Amino acid sequence: MSVIDRLGKKLSSSSAVMRLISNDRVMQVATGLMDARGRLEAAAERASEAWSILLNGHALPTIDPALDGGDDVVSAAAKRPAPAPKPAAAEANGAPTNGAAAHAPTNGAATNGAAAHAATNGEAASPEAPKPAGPGSAAEEKLAQQMASRTSLSRIGGRDVFEKCYKFMTADNARAMGVYPFFRPLDFNNGPEAQLEGRNVIMLGSNNYLGLTTHPKVREAAKQAIDKYGTSMTGSRLVNGSMRLHNELEEKLAAYHGKEAGLVFTTGYQVNIATISSLLANKKSVAVIDKDDHASIYDGVRLGQAAGARMVRYRHNDPEALDQALSELDTSEGALVITDGVFSAQGEIANLPGIVSVVKKHKARLLVDDAHALGVIGPGGRGTAAHFGVADQVDLIGGTFSKSLASIGGWLVGERKVLDYIQHFAYSFLFAASAAPPSVAAAMAALEVMQAEPERQDKLRENFTYMRNELRRLGFELGKTETAVIPIYIRDDLRTVMMWKTLLDEHSIYVNPFITPGVPPKQQVLRTSYMATHERHHLDRALEAFEKVGKKFGVIS
Amino acid sequence: MSVIDRLGKKLSSSSAVMRLISNDRVMQVATGLMDARGRLEAAAERASEAWSILLNGHALPTIDPALDGGDDVVSAAAKRPAPAPKPAAAEANGAPTNGAAAHAPTNGAATNGAAAHAATNGEAASPEAPKPAGPGSAAEEKLAQQMASRTSLSRIGGRDVFEKCYKFMTADNARAMGVYPFFRPLDFNNGPEAQLEGRNVIMLGSNNYLGLTTHPKVREAAKQAIDKYGTSMTGSRLVNGSMRLHNELEEKLAAYHGKEAGLVFTTGYQVNIATISSLLANKKSVAVIDKDDHASIYDGVRLGQAAGARMVRYRHNDPEALDQALSELDTSEGALVITDGVFSAQGEIANLPGIVSVVKKHKARLLVDDAHALGVIGPGGRGTAAHFGVADQVDLIGGTFSKSLASIGGWLVGERKVLDYIQHFAYSFLFAASAAPPSVAAAMAALEVMQAEPERQDKLRENFTYMRNELRRLGFELGKTETAVIPIYIRDDLRTVMMWKTLLDEHSIYVNPFITPGVPPKQQVLRTSYMATHERHHLDRALEAFEKVGKKFGVIS
Repeated sequence: MSVIDRLGKKLSSSSAVMRLISNDRVMQVATGLMDARGRLEAAAERASEAWSILLNGHALPTIDPALDGGDDVVSAAAKRPAPAPKPAAAEANGAPTNGAAAHAPTNGAATNGAAAHAATNGEAASPEAPKPAGPGSAAEEKLAQQMASRTSLSRIGGRDVFEKCYKFMTADNARAMGVYPFFRPLDFNNGPEAQLEGRNVIMLGSNNYLGLTTHPKVREAAKQAIDKYGTSMTGSRLVNGSMRLHNELEEKLAAYHGKEAGLVFTTGYQVNIATISSLLANKKSVAVIDKDDHASIYDGVRLGQAAGARMVRYRHNDPEALDQALSELDTSEGALVITDGVFSAQGEIANLPGIVSVVKKHKARLLVDDAHALGVIGPGGRGTAAHFGVADQVDLIGGTFSKSLASIGGWLVGERKVLDYIQHFAYSFLFAASAAPPSVAAAMAALEVMQAEPERQDKLRENFTYMRNELRRLGFELGKTETAVIPIYIRDDLRTVMMWKTLLDEHSIYVNPFITPGVPPKQQVLRTSYMATHERHHLDRALEAFEKVGKKFGVIS
Repeated sequence: MSVIDRLGKKLSSSSAVMRLISNDRVMQVATGLMDARGRLEAAAERASEAWSILLNGHALPTIDPALDGGDDVVSAAAKRPAPAPKPAAAEANGAPTNGAAAHAPTNGAATNGAAAHAATNGEAASPEAPKPAGPGSAAEEKLAQQMASRTSLSRIGGRDVFEKCYKFMTADNARAMGVYPFFRPLDFNNGPEAQLEGRNVIMLGSNNYLGLTTHPKVREAAKQAIDKYGTSMTGSRLVNGSMRLHNELEEKLAAYHGKEAGLVFTTGYQVNIATISSLLANKKSVAVIDKDDHASIYDGVRLGQAAGARMVRYRHNDPEALDQALSELDTSEGALVITDGVFSAQGEIANLPGIVSVVKKHKARLLVDDAHALGVIGPGGRGTAAHFGVADQVDLIGGTFSKSLASIGGWLVGERKVLDYIQHFAYSFLFAASAAPPSVAAAMAALEVMQAEPERQDKLRENFTYMRNELRRLGFELGKTETAVIPIYIRDDLRTVMMWKTLLDEHSIYVNPFITPGVPPKQQVLRTSYMATHERHHLDRALEAFEKVGKKFGVIS
């Protein structure tokens, strides 16, 4: 019986699983199993890898496209090589994404478009897979094979497009073992405490930053809209789904941001795909994006790529790298620079002053996605550009209703002519049913409450500052966060999942485990986020739990 | 002063516009203006073209991507030419979309990716532009130029990605003239009568087929969800936005359709982009789609193209053409056939028995978008596949909450393994905030009401059958509609806009004008749609208006 089979059997054996998982001996058990075979060198790491394979039987998605590869990412540090000639073997439409050559057309190519065996994706494949220790080490060979196949699932071709679905065992395996951490249905998730499977938990995993989803005025506005307008407009903004309520909110959003015009979308996701795909509509268009931008930005760029545009990525939050990337564009090309205002996983604020100055220097255009910034930073919660006092120098600012604004939908503000173009050229705006009355009314009420009750933002800042300081004091590593999102770096899959589960099962603390391939290797975190409505006792209970669990798993001493 | 300037001046002259527009003499006036110059041959048509340019200063979007070109569309009639060698001049990423060569990779290319002057789009450009009648005919030259530029807007490149926005004058021109027909904000749109700018109108332009957006049970369910859960989950299904309510609705949708599993999305648009882009993830994947499929399907395919997949379009609703298209695939390729169940503009039902049989023959997979079919056709409102008794032979059926289900969101049913794959691999599912509590609750209540009150579907069928019969009796041309969408073919831009405006201004009847470039030349329609909640008196008032206006503009005699 191979190592992997043993570990699998052990972990999935009926009675032992849940106990084992939430038991601090599991590390020793796993490590012990490995060591006992005497075949693998770094036992702890291997245990983690084995766990990961158990969990990921086949690959989870490269969850965030920001994590794809990295060879192409422009940094300022080293002068990048001259455009490489295209490999003869690489077909135009199957070429690996984003070759280092800045001027080689990269559109039409994508992450998984590469040849099935040329694994180009970060965390997978041979470089990190263990080598067989010697002849006959079947377990290790199997391990290596499984490691190599981790990111190959979406590359499965063949006559049946469902073939890859039938081979996707990750989720089923994890569910069978009782350790599946995703898509957990909450009974309630409407405040600092949520309910999961009948049990109260302290919610440190919500984007309900200002706690407005249960604010009486927000609730009341949504309910009144249902009474007044019904539950849906059942049509697109274009022909049969526009209502005065949309226009009213658009005017309010524009005024709030000091921009000429506003546009309301059905989802925040559609803000990015609509805006980016309509502005990048031909082969002279270049999306110049931060490597860590949100998935919806990547999807918008991909739609632009299908129309001939290309993508250039620059090193995360590095204006010098952006400068370098823009310098390398052809003089005939037009660039739309796109960055998150606050990065959703790291809680880090984009260096907008630096970015704005580079964008202006190159006469490019700038779109800032302020999903995690609105209501969190900036005077009156106006977000990243206002935070730095550069709102007038950012061309387009967009965001979502599904965080501080306590609803569903999205928004974009900027010049009237630009928004007018987008609303006439973006399929995902033109042909999607409009945001429903209760959603529009809830967002509008939340925007009003946000301004009428500025103490909420103060309380939020007080809460996340307290947690940042206290978690650091306990010895946790938190990265560059300055906002309501605080990632606790664990840097190990197994440990991250076990800590998540221990926090939840033993301490009733709900956080989000971000593991590979959702994050790059060694970047695993417990993502926590805070609300204005958390009371100090919630936070202190959480800190107590973090301290215990952090010590238990050796993350802090 | 050129013809075009004169006409423009005349139409936009302050006092005259509105009167002129709603005046049946406008045709004669416009025609007369043209004829007086004696320079253009077919006066009526030219007037229409001039109008169109006034309206479209620059191009409106090729509103429905289904209307792009057509050279590539596979028909069964003629054996298609062998793959043509790629023109040397066409760069891989700028090649015109969908060359006739079935095996030439077309991904990465798109409509507007062609060279700026090679106008490939249907209705635009030289073939139909009037030739200058002789030297010095400046007006005609200008006309020709403007015609040629109509679809070129999105091709504008240059250093500023906003340049095209500043040049987009269509909407502004039309607004200035008071004839802009899109994005009209309604005060209310919640039943058979709506309110537009303070005036009651009979609503024949809504997708609220069963009239459930104001049903007491639907309203109450949405309001209770707000009380119970708040206005939003403020998170993605993946990590922090799943709730039991989502799972419950998923189970109900699956049971209702007799499928193994269901998935709830935040919008109907995202159903298609998520499903298609995740299933078509590599260069062995081929989307084989009906030319008239919905824009969201096209966007899903484009995302797939960015990952290496390719697109093949077959002649509208033609199983033989589909057979031909599938026959031309390489044996190593996997096909996902995608069709609307009911086509949203035509009201036509897809020939699913024919399509299913061809799909099975080629061992391909089939996705049916039943947005306009659910609640409208099929036993219990189960849609197109059920209507034909072939539900068990359709792999995936998807749709929206924003029509019969009186809400916002989308749904997909099919095999559990396939849905499980999609929910783990589709960015627009993984990284979009989940459908909000009131939206999910409203859709669930609507699904229940739909089944509890089958008389609504009967009434709807009675209504649209009555209108179809009566409109035909009056002499209108209605195409192949068999559902709640009834297009009235006008086949002329000017006449369509004028009829739309006359119906609205003089008869308080709200319909949707579909004009070029939203539809192909000669396919202009007044799109009407019906609800279970229309009473006979609404319909008779509408018929009376249609008769008067149809006669006034010479559409019927």
